[in-house]
Amino acid sequence: LEIESRLEALGLALPAPPKVASHIRLPFSFVRVRGNRAFIAGHVALNADGTIAGPFGKVGADLTVEQAYESARLTALAVLGSLKRELGDLNRVTCWLRLFGMVNAAPGFTDLPPVINGFSDLILELYGQERGQHARSAVGMASLPFDSPVEVEGEVEIT
Amino acid sequence: LEIESRLEALGLALPAPPKVASHIRLPFSFVRVRGNRAFIAGHVALNADGTIAGPFGKVGADLTVEQAYESARLTALAVLGSLKRELGDLNRVTCWLRLFGMVNAAPGFTDLPPVINGFSDLILELYGQERGQHARSAVGMASLPFDSPVEVEGEVEIT
Amino acid sequence: LEIESRLEALGLALPAPPKVASHIRLPFSFVRVRGNRAFIAGHVALNADGTIAGPFGKVGADLTVEQAYESARLTALAVLGSLKRELGDLNRVTCWLRLFGMVNAAPGFTDLPPVINGFSDLILELYGQERGQHARSAVGMASLPFDSPVEVEGEVEIT
Repeated sequence: LEIESRLEALGLALPAPPKVASHIRLPFSFVRVRGNRAFIAGHVALNADGTIAGPFGKVGADLTVEQAYESARLTALAVLGSLKRELGDLNRVTCWLRLFGMVNAAPGFTDLPPVINGFSDLILELYGQERGQHARSAVGMASLPFDSPVEVEGEVEIT
Repeated sequence: LEIESRLEALGLALPAPPKVASHIRLPFSFVRVRGNRAFIAGHVALNADGTIAGPFGKVGADLTVEQAYESARLTALAVLGSLKRELGDLNRVTCWLRLFGMVNAAPGFTDLPPVINGFSDLILELYGQERGQHARSAVGMASLPFDSPVEVEGEVEIT
Repeated sequence: LEIESRLEALGLALPAPPKVASHIRLPFSFVRVRGNRAFIAGHVALNADGTIAGPFGKVGADLTVEQAYESARLTALAVLGSLKRELGDLNRVTCWLRLFGMVNAAPGFTDLPPVINGFSDLILELYGQERGQHARSAVGMASLPFDSPVEVEGEVEIT
């Protein structure tokens, strides 16, 4: 339970499963496992109880880069929560492969990598450089569900 | 031919191959197969004859969520048409893995999951929960080719 | 060294590694290799010395389709540069699988496939139809890092 010990040592807890208003149907898997591959659905930042976490809106207008970095970090915790529920143990992630980082960008806002660093930094802190390294994009979207500032999807290898 | 019987039972037919104006070059594969992996290029809704299907424009301004849901459903049929042409038989899709759902979003439009549900619902209806489940994103784009309201790309496992 | 001979025959040279201002942290791998899979991070056009190449801005406003096509072609060279550094030899790419092409699109600009053709055309020219073919998307983003006009990420198979 090495990864979970590290989370605890950092004072971090995984959020409850995503909880959305009852009229919103999300007919997909937050993590789809097949063989040694785990596909991660688009995740957003969650509060401890699984409700969607604010602040909401466009980075560069409604949120600063620092606030969006924190949202990306919470998004990583949401992803780790989904992986933990699906896999039972976060050590089953043998390596991170690909992250696609999406920012709800205000017109003209291009400071996108520093935002998604909030996700990458936590993964590297927990899994180390060897297992945690990943190919990544950090790009600006016209809009994201729930008006979340950040959404990330990707793929990891599991055992 | 179980999947194709279900399509027929639902009164659905697969469209002809995508047909675009002759000056538009699309130098890529709609489905790229390698081993047991099939990568699905970005698809949009098609008419029965393969021409790009309207209505066109931005969801939340030019189209309602209901119209965009229907476009996402037609996009799933277009993808199934490409898979059928490439694989010969839709039963060769052993499971769905990942879908990346893109919505041509009007400024401020964030009701994205209900749009892409039009794709997911049809896949689950045809393939069932076990084979059909997939990791998914539903995000807002600045623009899409042909001003289509919805585009979806992804990956499936094949036999 | 067949692929590199073809590059040379076309009068093309691979750019130096991406070079960005020292305050910008990019804590990810430009290429993440695992087994026979290589994941390509989002790349943009580079100058020969690895600095980010202009022209910058929105395609359809600040850049023409022709200029953006050239940016997509330079993006392919940047990707090939990263693959060369990671793999040692571009012949180790046994086939191209998936490309996700992103265009920094001006409002209302939908002429996206002709832009990303700048990437696809070069790959097909170098690797041929069999190895070079790929599933692809070409979509419009709200913004891209460095205000680059084009960014592409994807996956290839390697030996």
